Amino acid sequence: MHNKKVMQRMLTIEGHIKGISRMVENDDYCIDIIRQIQAVQSALNKVSALILDDHLNSCVITAIQGEDVGERERVLDEIGEIFSQTSKG
Amino acid sequence: MHNKKVMQRMLTIEGHIKGISRMVENDDYCIDIIRQIQAVQSALNKVSALILDDHLNSCVITAIQGEDVGERERVLDEIGEIFSQTSKG
Amino acid sequence: MHNKKVMQRMLTIEGHIKGISRMVENDDYCIDIIRQIQAVQSALNKVSALILDDHLNSCVITAIQGEDVGERERVLDEIGEIFSQTSKG
Amino acid sequence: MHNKKVMQRMLTIEGHIKGISRMVENDDYCIDIIRQIQAVQSALNKVSALILDDHLNSCVITAIQGEDVGERERVLDEIGEIFSQTSKG
Repeated sequence: MHNKKVMQRMLTIEGHIKGISRMVENDDYCIDIIRQIQAVQSALNKVSALILDDHLNSCVITAIQGEDVGERERVLDEIGEIFSQTSKG
Repeated sequence: MHNKKVMQRMLTIEGHIKGISRMVENDDYCIDIIRQIQAVQSALNKVSALILDDHLNSCVITAIQGEDVGERERVLDEIGEIFSQTSKG
Repeated sequence: MHNKKVMQRMLTIEGHIKGISRMVENDDYCIDIIRQIQAVQSALNKVSALILDDHLNSCVITAIQGEDVGERERVLDEIGEIFSQTSKG
Repeated sequence: MHNKKVMQRMLTIEGHIKGISRMVENDDYCIDIIRQIQAVQSALNKVSALILDDHLNSCVITAIQGEDVGERERVLDEIGEIFSQTSKG
């Protein structure tokens, strides 16, 4: 599982966010700040992808191989939902 | 399955695209054209979501309940891939 | 201006959309269809970028150099709006 | 200008990121974590929009009203660039 990798990335992202706050405070050039925000967003997307990967390879497999049809539907609906949400950004 | 619904939406999107081409041809106001493109993008996202829903409720269930571990991995990796791709827009 | 280039790309996108409709009709593999939809989305993003570029280099310059402050605000607000909308996918 | 509002939002986002790190550490449900990441992405989009708004109403107006054509082009190209980047997520 990617738990350790995800934690490390989250810490990096936290540092990145603090750096952006400093840029805002220092009244840095707007476009440079927006670019840094876009870089953080890209890093967050990668974290989401890692977590989804873990989820597919654990909970989703368990639910689909299990006998609880309601639980299986719930788990599959959730994947659909976060996909739709991602498309919306 | 959503096949019929998807077909209908694809036809609507095709008409929408033709309308946008006409707007470009007529040299319509740029922002109006961009807004129409954004509306088509949103419609395409909904089509993708419907197709993914079908996919999760057919191929994914079949693969995970099947005994071919390689096939299962392949199917789960694909979900991860299109999710990452969507995050990139 | 990019008008000709945009028209050509719109025609290509129209053909692409028709191809996707055929894939849906033929009941092609869901993930392949979703990937084609993502390719169209990417092509539409490029068209939007071209149109925005034209817009910035014509209407936006005219409005900002003009003396109508209301018009200038309107034009700048529109840029902000389509940016926010894009972020939402 | 939105500098104060942006700073406040960045601090909120920093807290949000820390909360997500804790969720990862506690091995919370994957989908819940992904949803929180999506909420942060949405908050970052809003910050970008505020900063772009400031930028359009200051640097962009100055550059377009100025006499340095190269500078004007540079500023307009940057807008196009961050727009394209946003479309890519």
